[in-house]
Amino acid sequence: MVDIQKTSNSKIDKVNFDDLVFGQVFTDHMMECDYRDGKWQKPVIKPYGPLSLDPSAKVLHYGQAVFEGMKAYKDKDENIWLFRPDENFKRINRSSKRLAIPEFPEDYFFESLNALLKLDSEWIQKGFGNSLYIRPFVIATEKGVSASPAKEYKFMIICSPAQAYYSGEVRVKFSEDYSRAADGGVGFAKAAGNYGAQFFPTNIAKEEGFQQIVWTDANAHEFLEEAGTMNIFFRIGDKLVTAPISDRILDGVTRKSVLQLADEYNIETEVRRVTVKEIVEAAKKGELKEMFGSGTATVINPISGFGYKGEKYELPKLEDSYARFFKDKLMKIQYNEAEDKFGWRYKVK
Amino acid sequence: MVDIQKTSNSKIDKVNFDDLVFGQVFTDHMMECDYRDGKWQKPVIKPYGPLSLDPSAKVLHYGQAVFEGMKAYKDKDENIWLFRPDENFKRINRSSKRLAIPEFPEDYFFESLNALLKLDSEWIQKGFGNSLYIRPFVIATEKGVSASPAKEYKFMIICSPAQAYYSGEVRVKFSEDYSRAADGGVGFAKAAGNYGAQFFPTNIAKEEGFQQIVWTDANAHEFLEEAGTMNIFFRIGDKLVTAPISDRILDGVTRKSVLQLADEYNIETEVRRVTVKEIVEAAKKGELKEMFGSGTATVINPISGFGYKGEKYELPKLEDSYARFFKDKLMKIQYNEAEDKFGWRYKVK
Ligand SMILES: Cc1ncc(COP(=O)(O)O)c(C=O)c1O
Ligand SMILES: Cc1ncc(COP(=O)(O)O)c(C=O)c1O
Repeated sequence: MVDIQKTSNSKIDKVNFDDLVFGQVFTDHMMECDYRDGKWQKPVIKPYGPLSLDPSAKVLHYGQAVFEGMKAYKDKDENIWLFRPDENFKRINRSSKRLAIPEFPEDYFFESLNALLKLDSEWIQKGFGNSLYIRPFVIATEKGVSASPAKEYKFMIICSPAQAYYSGEVRVKFSEDYSRAADGGVGFAKAAGNYGAQFFPTNIAKEEGFQQIVWTDANAHEFLEEAGTMNIFFRIGDKLVTAPISDRILDGVTRKSVLQLADEYNIETEVRRVTVKEIVEAAKKGELKEMFGSGTATVINPISGFGYKGEKYELPKLEDSYARFFKDKLMKIQYNEAEDKFGWRYKVK
Repeated sequence: MVDIQKTSNSKIDKVNFDDLVFGQVFTDHMMECDYRDGKWQKPVIKPYGPLSLDPSAKVLHYGQAVFEGMKAYKDKDENIWLFRPDENFKRINRSSKRLAIPEFPEDYFFESLNALLKLDSEWIQKGFGNSLYIRPFVIATEKGVSASPAKEYKFMIICSPAQAYYSGEVRVKFSEDYSRAADGGVGFAKAAGNYGAQFFPTNIAKEEGFQQIVWTDANAHEFLEEAGTMNIFFRIGDKLVTAPISDRILDGVTRKSVLQLADEYNIETEVRRVTVKEIVEAAKKGELKEMFGSGTATVINPISGFGYKGEKYELPKLEDSYARFFKDKLMKIQYNEAEDKFGWRYKVK
């Protein structure tokens, strides 16, 4: 059902897999599927290459675009695995719906993704931490500068090899003025516009010595919500706390997996609104033992400190950190090195 | 300073200027200016044609894109005029700043805009209501799927001939659940993502018989803010009321011109928060005489009714409407048919 046009000119020999910058190098092929005349046409896999877009294409003017982020892992026997790809598939369609983009058929998604990964399977390196980052996305390609939903779209999948990387120490700033999402807005969607909107406040935070922002609610900046590309967990005493999903917060696949694993391993969790005030107080009292982010790109990202209203707070360095625990558990499942109790692994065929 | 590459193949003879759909037909040329190596390169005017973008170009994934909307008008003596273009220039740079896009130099903007309009001047039709819609925009072109500001951009200007058009009766829905912008967000910017985010709620409103949404504050949906591409005015008795500019509301050029004209003609104005409650009550008592939107595309757009919580309210049809008054005053200035007291007109040279 997928039309495959193979490249005669692989770039793989030119790539140094030991020195990859995240998201810069792409594999030999990409998937492209056009929506027109009211339906998704046949998916095509073809050599990775530039798109031709009219300067008035709606994606460029009205941000009618959504995306996903997933990874493929290769085990010792050269099997290729995805982690809960059904979640990403459902989420891109939830995002699309909110952006008035037609939803994508499930069989088109999985058949073309499997075919693409098989074709570019050499690009997936073995070794714990190595992976292929997969970026499905949809853009409004129809021409015309009137602010209304497009009638033509492209669904695409591009892939970029990624190494395990140590992101350095991450300190976060709790947002006091700027906001990421409004109630009734598009914060729960992986809508392109949500990300560009964070760059300027994040630049300011960087100048102040923080790597990322933890966004707070737009009303009163009282509640801690999520970071730019990660959900956020707090360990208060030995309890693991995270904000509930809402229409402002992305329903992260890693987040929900951490919560399930915590249950499995009898770690007490609370999914509830988390106030800035309680976290600052817990930090002062030494009860805030840990903070970490969860997301596909880094799996679990430990946070070593945070800033709020000009004060900086450092977190202890733990021997028995939850961050390390969950990262290890998750990665072992992802790389087919541990039992997959929950049926999260998906074998590429 | 601008590099000009003329087309040898004008499309103008194929265009029926009496039957134009807004924003569908583009003139023979476009302006393109690249940002790279930390600076804006030389602006180029060249034949209108497709862009080549890497599938990983940041605009497609992270919505790092802003735009403007302006118009050129031709008077009886073939002079070409812009309306307060300095406002659009300043605003695109405000938008860019918020989206972490480098600001564009003023001389590049005006020199290339003048050159483009001169080259495509035949596309601007005489006649009250005819105009050339001008769309400056900036997109992040750098490749790479990591969520951080791009290092490469394109500033472009494309132009589309437009007719005066009667948009039909416009009824608006006051938003009860969905929101357009958050405090501390990007609502005041003409950021691409603000527009795509409105399509889905607007589709729902359309199914209910409304053409547009008037957005309310995201906190409590208590205050009326603006519509998708128009600021909103209310005439209560003979007083003209509109919401103040904030970080959620676009600082419309037409809006501020209406306010100045109202002063000039001794129409009492109030710039203050407008509650849904007071407007519903004023409508019930017959004190809400008029509502209209203001924006470059339609200048002034009369609104004939609104909906809120399942109720529909119709507004009276006035002989002496403010909407008609302001539209006429503004257009006469735009088309060089009335004195330009405020120095709003800009002659293309
Ligand atoms: C805003 C946001 N929050 C959270 C996440 C983490 O989600 P997931 O665990 O599904 O990767 C992501 C990225 O993927 C994100 O973009
Ligand atoms: C969100 C929004 N509000 C208001 C306006 C009206 O602004 P202006 O009068 O400058 O065209 C526009 C469009 O131009 C807009 O996009």
